[in-house]
Amino acid sequence: MNLFYYPAACSLADHIALIEAGLPYKLLSINREKRTEDGRDFLSINPKGYIPTLEMNDGTILTENQIILAYIAEQSGKLVPDDSILRWRTFEALAFMSSEIHGSYNPFFRDFPEPEKERAREKLKKTFAILADQMGDKAFLVSNEMTIADCYLFWVLMAAPRSGIELPKNLRNCLDRMKAMPSVIQALAEEGLS
Amino acid sequence: MNLFYYPAACSLADHIALIEAGLPYKLLSINREKRTEDGRDFLSINPKGYIPTLEMNDGTILTENQIILAYIAEQSGKLVPDDSILRWRTFEALAFMSSEIHGSYNPFFRDFPEPEKERAREKLKKTFAILADQMGDKAFLVSNEMTIADCYLFWVLMAAPRSGIELPKNLRNCLDRMKAMPSVIQALAEEGLS
Ligand SMILES: N[C@@H](CCC(=O)N[C@@H](CS)C(=O)NCC(=O)O)C(=O)O
Ligand SMILES: N[C@@H](CCC(=O)N[C@@H](CS)C(=O)NCC(=O)O)C(=O)O
Repeated sequence: MNLFYYPAACSLADHIALIEAGLPYKLLSINREKRTEDGRDFLSINPKGYIPTLEMNDGTILTENQIILAYIAEQSGKLVPDDSILRWRTFEALAFMSSEIHGSYNPFFRDFPEPEKERAREKLKKTFAILADQMGDKAFLVSNEMTIADCYLFWVLMAAPRSGIELPKNLRNCLDRMKAMPSVIQALAEEGLS
Repeated sequence: MNLFYYPAACSLADHIALIEAGLPYKLLSINREKRTEDGRDFLSINPKGYIPTLEMNDGTILTENQIILAYIAEQSGKLVPDDSILRWRTFEALAFMSSEIHGSYNPFFRDFPEPEKERAREKLKKTFAILADQMGDKAFLVSNEMTIADCYLFWVLMAAPRSGIELPKNLRNCLDRMKAMPSVIQALAEEGLS
């Protein structure tokens, strides 16, 4: 499988998941002219123009972070709990972070006017409180085992400081614990971030 | 199952899906004081404070539109194609509409300043072009059979005029076809919208 990515972008979630899942993968970055590292036109691969984008071995293209993560989990039989309700909680947490948090980072990533940043900060505070509540004193967000929700959470927490929001203590601790995991260390190194 | 909803809000997708799935359900609205139609405090049911919210028969609460739709499909064995790649395309389309379109309606729903509306319109034009491409001349978004992606699509298309964007022709036609479906007619009537 090929994972199209930008270093430190939200594709980091899928990168960590691929390592944890033990699936073979190749990372392909995209340059400013939207050409892929192996010389192809990225827009003809994914007309949406964004990453993460997964290219399966048969050439099928899959987009949308949550769905690529679910696909990686299904292929490997790992990273989604067997328990029915924890399984739904995993997908629910991914949808929550994708719909309520990811978009709220835009004003900081793309330097929107201050009132928009302030509105985003208010929203982020609420969403982090909800994540902190869900995490409680567990090792990971959904249970004591790592799931694909934690792969995305890692990126969400890593990117949070750009918004100027202080993370609740249990989320900060989770970020620190995850930074020490071999899969995370490897992913960061492969993206040139260590 | 109880579905907490506001009339004409995005919970309409789940409402249509419940009817198509043939599952028994009860609709419960929420008033301005965040009390449910059956007299409970909505925030103690779903601290996120938003709809759709599903209450399962055993009292378990499930949130996030895409995930409630996937749960309805799984419970009924309907509305998600058996074919592996069409199944992923269904979930991918839901994630796309949720992360790229739903949030772009906020400037219109909540009357944000004009520059934000203009930015949202630019984004919506691109996203509708992508949906139109995906639909082509099929009867529904993912295949010629209805899926949960179409339940959400119906709401997305119904809400689009508030942004002032003109929909591509094949999406407009799909909206018209869906408006004539018994499940959609029933859902709109039950929400007092017909
Ligand atoms: N809805 C997409 C959004 C992905 C997204 O926003 N990706 C960003 C990086 S974190 C990106 O590629 N931005 C560059 C661009 O849009 O050109 C998903 O959930 O995967
Ligand atoms: N991430 C949620 C967002 C749901 C959402 O934005 N719901 C709106 C109605 S379409 C709502 O309840 N807004 C009222 C509020 O947030 O108080 C999902 O995808 O289900």
